[in-house]
Amino acid sequence: MQAYVMRSIGETGLVEKDRPEAGPNDAIVRPTLGLVCTSDVHTVHGAIGEREDITLGHEAVGIVEEVGSEVDHFEQGDRVAVGAITPDWGSPAAQDGHPSQSGEALGGWKFANVKDGVFADYFHVNEADANMAHVPDGVTDEAAAYVTDMMSTGFNAAERADIPVGGTVAVFAQGPVGLMATKGAALQGAGRVIAVESVPKRQELAESYGADEIVDFSEVDTVEAIMELTDGEGVDAAIEALGSNATFQDCIEVTKAGGVISNVGYHGEGETVDIPREAWGVGMAEKDIVTSLCPGGRLRLQRLLRLLEQEKVDPTRMTTHEFAFDEIDEGFHLMESKEEGIIKPVIRFD
Amino acid sequence: MQAYVMRSIGETGLVEKDRPEAGPNDAIVRPTLGLVCTSDVHTVHGAIGEREDITLGHEAVGIVEEVGSEVDHFEQGDRVAVGAITPDWGSPAAQDGHPSQSGEALGGWKFANVKDGVFADYFHVNEADANMAHVPDGVTDEAAAYVTDMMSTGFNAAERADIPVGGTVAVFAQGPVGLMATKGAALQGAGRVIAVESVPKRQELAESYGADEIVDFSEVDTVEAIMELTDGEGVDAAIEALGSNATFQDCIEVTKAGGVISNVGYHGEGETVDIPREAWGVGMAEKDIVTSLCPGGRLRLQRLLRLLEQEKVDPTRMTTHEFAFDEIDEGFHLMESKEEGIIKPVIRFD
Amino acid sequence: MQAYVMRSIGETGLVEKDRPEAGPNDAIVRPTLGLVCTSDVHTVHGAIGEREDITLGHEAVGIVEEVGSEVDHFEQGDRVAVGAITPDWGSPAAQDGHPSQSGEALGGWKFANVKDGVFADYFHVNEADANMAHVPDGVTDEAAAYVTDMMSTGFNAAERADIPVGGTVAVFAQGPVGLMATKGAALQGAGRVIAVESVPKRQELAESYGADEIVDFSEVDTVEAIMELTDGEGVDAAIEALGSNATFQDCIEVTKAGGVISNVGYHGEGETVDIPREAWGVGMAEKDIVTSLCPGGRLRLQRLLRLLEQEKVDPTRMTTHEFAFDEIDEGFHLMESKEEGIIKPVIRFD
Amino acid sequence: MQAYVMRSIGETGLVEKDRPEAGPNDAIVRPTLGLVCTSDVHTVHGAIGEREDITLGHEAVGIVEEVGSEVDHFEQGDRVAVGAITPDWGSPAAQDGHPSQSGEALGGWKFANVKDGVFADYFHVNEADANMAHVPDGVTDEAAAYVTDMMSTGFNAAERADIPVGGTVAVFAQGPVGLMATKGAALQGAGRVIAVESVPKRQELAESYGADEIVDFSEVDTVEAIMELTDGEGVDAAIEALGSNATFQDCIEVTKAGGVISNVGYHGEGETVDIPREAWGVGMAEKDIVTSLCPGGRLRLQRLLRLLEQEKVDPTRMTTHEFAFDEIDEGFHLMESKEEGIIKPVIRFD
Repeated sequence: MQAYVMRSIGETGLVEKDRPEAGPNDAIVRPTLGLVCTSDVHTVHGAIGEREDITLGHEAVGIVEEVGSEVDHFEQGDRVAVGAITPDWGSPAAQDGHPSQSGEALGGWKFANVKDGVFADYFHVNEADANMAHVPDGVTDEAAAYVTDMMSTGFNAAERADIPVGGTVAVFAQGPVGLMATKGAALQGAGRVIAVESVPKRQELAESYGADEIVDFSEVDTVEAIMELTDGEGVDAAIEALGSNATFQDCIEVTKAGGVISNVGYHGEGETVDIPREAWGVGMAEKDIVTSLCPGGRLRLQRLLRLLEQEKVDPTRMTTHEFAFDEIDEGFHLMESKEEGIIKPVIRFD
Repeated sequence: MQAYVMRSIGETGLVEKDRPEAGPNDAIVRPTLGLVCTSDVHTVHGAIGEREDITLGHEAVGIVEEVGSEVDHFEQGDRVAVGAITPDWGSPAAQDGHPSQSGEALGGWKFANVKDGVFADYFHVNEADANMAHVPDGVTDEAAAYVTDMMSTGFNAAERADIPVGGTVAVFAQGPVGLMATKGAALQGAGRVIAVESVPKRQELAESYGADEIVDFSEVDTVEAIMELTDGEGVDAAIEALGSNATFQDCIEVTKAGGVISNVGYHGEGETVDIPREAWGVGMAEKDIVTSLCPGGRLRLQRLLRLLEQEKVDPTRMTTHEFAFDEIDEGFHLMESKEEGIIKPVIRFD
Repeated sequence: MQAYVMRSIGETGLVEKDRPEAGPNDAIVRPTLGLVCTSDVHTVHGAIGEREDITLGHEAVGIVEEVGSEVDHFEQGDRVAVGAITPDWGSPAAQDGHPSQSGEALGGWKFANVKDGVFADYFHVNEADANMAHVPDGVTDEAAAYVTDMMSTGFNAAERADIPVGGTVAVFAQGPVGLMATKGAALQGAGRVIAVESVPKRQELAESYGADEIVDFSEVDTVEAIMELTDGEGVDAAIEALGSNATFQDCIEVTKAGGVISNVGYHGEGETVDIPREAWGVGMAEKDIVTSLCPGGRLRLQRLLRLLEQEKVDPTRMTTHEFAFDEIDEGFHLMESKEEGIIKPVIRFD
Repeated sequence: MQAYVMRSIGETGLVEKDRPEAGPNDAIVRPTLGLVCTSDVHTVHGAIGEREDITLGHEAVGIVEEVGSEVDHFEQGDRVAVGAITPDWGSPAAQDGHPSQSGEALGGWKFANVKDGVFADYFHVNEADANMAHVPDGVTDEAAAYVTDMMSTGFNAAERADIPVGGTVAVFAQGPVGLMATKGAALQGAGRVIAVESVPKRQELAESYGADEIVDFSEVDTVEAIMELTDGEGVDAAIEALGSNATFQDCIEVTKAGGVISNVGYHGEGETVDIPREAWGVGMAEKDIVTSLCPGGRLRLQRLLRLLEQEKVDPTRMTTHEFAFDEIDEGFHLMESKEEGIIKPVIRFD
């Protein structure tokens, strides 16, 4: 079968591989649609170290081709969404309420990290009963693919921010995760959602997803602008959806004492991520800093798919490009260059 | 009346002041016993800026001398413990569950910060019904004085650490707050409490308060030692009770993915407090960082006094020295120099 | 001044009273608009025992006439919304996170219960800084009056139900509180909101507030219908907004193991409210039963007013009737009879 | 092999059965020590309906005899404690934080309910990696057997009661689960633990496990006594460890507004379990009612075993009798009759 791989740091390509096999708890899925994620770009750039011919991709919808002997809930031919994060549900970390950390830190993240990803004619799903969900009839493949990572990750950033009903929240950066954090904040009853973004197309999307105010960091001082919008009080919660030390510091500056900073950005550089000491109340202002990795699991996927089925969210507004599987390298490099106003490119397998 | 004050940065002394007056919600208390806190040393060194003749001290037990017209629960002659933190209970921050941040960050901290403290013949208590508690008969002044700050602060550090029953916790630094965090962790069902400390007397106290293991940072690498003690897994929670950037970083290193870092240390120096990026799982390992300032309030004081009444905690083991009020400057400077193995000095007013 | 009172059980009328006076922490408010609540009907029917000439009403917006010496945040002439529940914020219950229970069970409920209510030319507000909020310019008196009870109560029922994003919820009864619980569930990201109601006008309002399905208990078996809508699984949460033993039991029947039953209904009759033993998993199915009384407080009011200011909720759709203050008895008796399709009657004071 | 079974309702006996076989995720364990639980008595009396020759018992320690192909963490010869509750960790209920409810209400309870229990020469463990734990060297089989149900269940009742540090709690009934709830409450920092019990031996054990007060319901009115002990305030939390309608009602009576009733008793009789309406604040006093079934899982077992290893709990004080496996019927019937002061009988397999 064909697979789109990271050949080594900095190099990608389509290669021939053997079809994976299913153990007793596993499934083999034939993808019909996938989405390219900036994480894959980081991976190819070496963020998690060297990999040799690992298949890329972790956001996909497809058709079940085969299931192991212990799989009860799915059978060949089922249309499924597969979580980007596929935890070991019996692990101590999962039993402790942190399935995404199963085995080790970030251990639920397997696709295109510790095993082959989804950009291939077939891919392997561990603990299939627990890590996939049936896609309801009225939901398209394209919409469903967004639940596997973007919606789960972005909404969770908002959930962890613990925004009170009617509260205020600032979401820093309106890439796909930030946009879904903005939508997640709106979905959870925030009274005022402030989106920080400079790109006009992303500002528009942010507004369509529920941002009440846009702060354009290229035109104003972000911290000042947010403090002014909140009458000097600061926000109840700030969401870091970029992964930048400077942005992280701004989050702490604009959050009121007793508020929450919810970090969902992948911090790819530097020895440390720095907390501004005074704004943090010298360690006593009860500004909690929480982090999270995309929640996976059948239940999570089902709940997010329900929001699509009930038309409460339309993630497909984020789709800007579409490629066939044999054009995937083009899509990948566009995601890398961030040219042509790309937000999310769809890959069709047919 | 006599008051022990910070004359200006670096200078202390006894001065004559007018007796304070009680507004409708207030009380005037005549202290019988107080404790000197290292925070006062920081204040005199200039940590919160210049102050002129502000009375020092925030940990005291005393006798009610006068109450305002709206005070219902107390009357002249009552023996009371007064919280070190005396929040404005009707403020939005208190309504939001963060009374210690009322008005502004750390705004519940009034004594020896924005108003005169307790080291005087009389002191003033705002919102007296809400900020003091009767001391039960069987509890000494000395024991009761510990609930006003040390027990409330240290126990809260352990409460915020959200230690599971049977879980593991590392408490960094065994000063009075760290010792009470150790006791708090033990009190909440921790399975294994690891205390980090190099001073023998403090190590002994830590063991008497429930530490199962001592890690002496002067002899071993703290992070390595804790990882080894936990079979490479790290602890469920780490408590920072020192206020040092290096210790804070160690806390993040030794906490497992999905665990909690509870900061109670006062970070007095540097522009930033730094999170080690990789140990923090590049911002996605679900290692939450929480902070807190001593909880105040009559209910809190009553619950802590109940632990004394039932003899579940003996904080007086931390008392190493005793001074009369007119010798207070000596006690204060000993707390500053940390000589003579000082942990907590008692001040008696008679 | 004129006051609309409960003369005794079963009897109401307008009487002349002295204008109330403000203590140091209090305010006197001149109402401009009020809403009649079914609770007042219960009160007049004797639900909380005999009362003599107590002024009725607890939902009002008005103009500050006078403030006490200790009141900082408000001054004469301010336009304010006053919480239906006006807690003692320094009380142990409030310090414990349960301000509505301050002093005693339901102790935050003072208006028309233990002191005169708001249906008078002037009314008294205890702890004014903590229990009122300024009404933003763009928000009408009518809309603002809904935050004082209906929105705070109904939304809180949904908040306490702890509905997961994308989860399922059934809201039993679509009176004003139930309608706001429906809106609250939608506001918090529920995936599917099932409203139980038989009155067509209320069904329509429920849909306009976010109900995805209507179950008409006069036409189908409610429990069966909800189980069918959820593929036999039951809902993640059920909200009881009626106060009926039978409805309460249905809530337990339709909630899945591990779900939450959030009771907001006032149970006015019977010795007991009964849990169906088997549906409750013989006491081990982790179906938690939570209850709540309307949250009060300036912060809560401000957050709800922000939702109005941002036009995220329009509670005025529930207004079905309008009366001048001197016609209030008519409005009250209509609320009693529930004739003319009444949902909420507005009272205008001018 | 030999198995001690429920032949049918009311009838028990030793029978010959085939040794169970391990699927890919399973283990076969040879028990060395078990404990008889009153739940088994209920089962034999017909509480969960008819069963034919189902093996009894769900509390055991033993030696791993065989593991399936997918089991990583255990191998033949390992000494293990096996949870009484063995959830399906990938199920939606487990993903939702309710593993004990996996599949259906109480679905994690498999032993002697939906599959053969542990009182046999060999027994079968589903999802072995997730549902057993190694017993540390210093911990005896007898002590370890208590973590599988009694400690996990009783401690969890206290955890769910959400007792504040220094708070008050009443534990109704001091059978083995109630005793462990008492210990659990003490372990979590309760300020005052009130144990309700009439049997002297159980009263003594309660005191040894941390009860500060004993209320003997055979001598005083329980509700009055507890209200008096708490100065009329009621307790922060009440734990129902009996499963009686009357006791459940007492729990609601003695809990303060804003408190928690944690039900762990198995309610075996009646159509309903009844909430006293007025004491419940007519459904608005924020007295939450929570329930739970014994938590299982390797992590839970490890944490409880750590408490034994560190000698923080001694559950073996509850052992009153000991029987060889071939005398098990005697032990079972003694547990049924509750004669001879029985609390827990140990069964030794050799």
